[in-house]
Amino acid sequence: MSEPVNSAANALFLDDLSVGQRFSSGSHTIDEGQIKAFAAQFDPQPFHLDGEAAKATLFGRLAASGWHTAAITMKLLVESGLPLRGGIIGSGGEVSWPRPTRPGDTLTVLSEVEEITPSRSRPDRGMIRVRSETRNQHGETVQILIAKLVVPRRATAAVPI
Amino acid sequence: MSEPVNSAANALFLDDLSVGQRFSSGSHTIDEGQIKAFAAQFDPQPFHLDGEAAKATLFGRLAASGWHTAAITMKLLVESGLPLRGGIIGSGGEVSWPRPTRPGDTLTVLSEVEEITPSRSRPDRGMIRVRSETRNQHGETVQILIAKLVVPRRATAAVPI
Repeated sequence: MSEPVNSAANALFLDDLSVGQRFSSGSHTIDEGQIKAFAAQFDPQPFHLDGEAAKATLFGRLAASGWHTAAITMKLLVESGLPLRGGIIGSGGEVSWPRPTRPGDTLTVLSEVEEITPSRSRPDRGMIRVRSETRNQHGETVQILIAKLVVPRRATAAVPI
Repeated sequence: MSEPVNSAANALFLDDLSVGQRFSSGSHTIDEGQIKAFAAQFDPQPFHLDGEAAKATLFGRLAASGWHTAAITMKLLVESGLPLRGGIIGSGGEVSWPRPTRPGDTLTVLSEVEEITPSRSRPDRGMIRVRSETRNQHGETVQILIAKLVVPRRATAAVPI
């Protein structure tokens, strides 16, 4: 991914997208309180809950749950990072966490359209594959998400039979 | 997946696992308040925030964010669903949501060990691939997660040189 396109414009239809198109999100800074609160609710393991306990683990110090990084990534995509008409609707994807998110990290998401597939059975929509890299303030990638999303097409005039 | 093995026993080392081994979690019931609170924080889209607004979307009525289903799945795995020594530590996986999680759904997770790979470079650990299906009270699958996890091996006696 090189120079990202800013995403301030209106939300886009499938017709407005092209392979290689890039979008950048705003940012979110995570702190120790957020990390512990998410972990207490959804991923109650010592390395996500307690900096002292984390020292004896693979993480070495407090780290956010990968699912917390994923949730923040979704927030950034929805709020500013991927302006799709009808919202961001997907049936899943591949997620990986090359390194942990740490207290004080400021995350941003860079997304790139990798594939566009108009639906054969439903002419009003199509699927896109998007790669979204979540990076910290050092430019290090903390998450890679490859997602398939449904995007509506612009309504077309009725064709006479 | 057929009959699951109950997971009440002590946490397991890599040496204790076998391909085909199954685990079942406790349950979590989700309500409208939880769905809206998660969405407000991490996935603020109309179909996750407002039942009325959801009617005009693909979802038809209020649905939980897929990332919320993923987070609850992690909670169930950590608390009861996958008793691994050292905790549940992974670098990512594939996630899909065949159908939405709805208000009032009671979720449980059934997991199966699909692959076990001792590390060649690190004799104290290995990787496992686990398939975790999250099901609602009707037995319908709302999430499939294929995760690769790091699991420690039981310490072995030192070998004389």
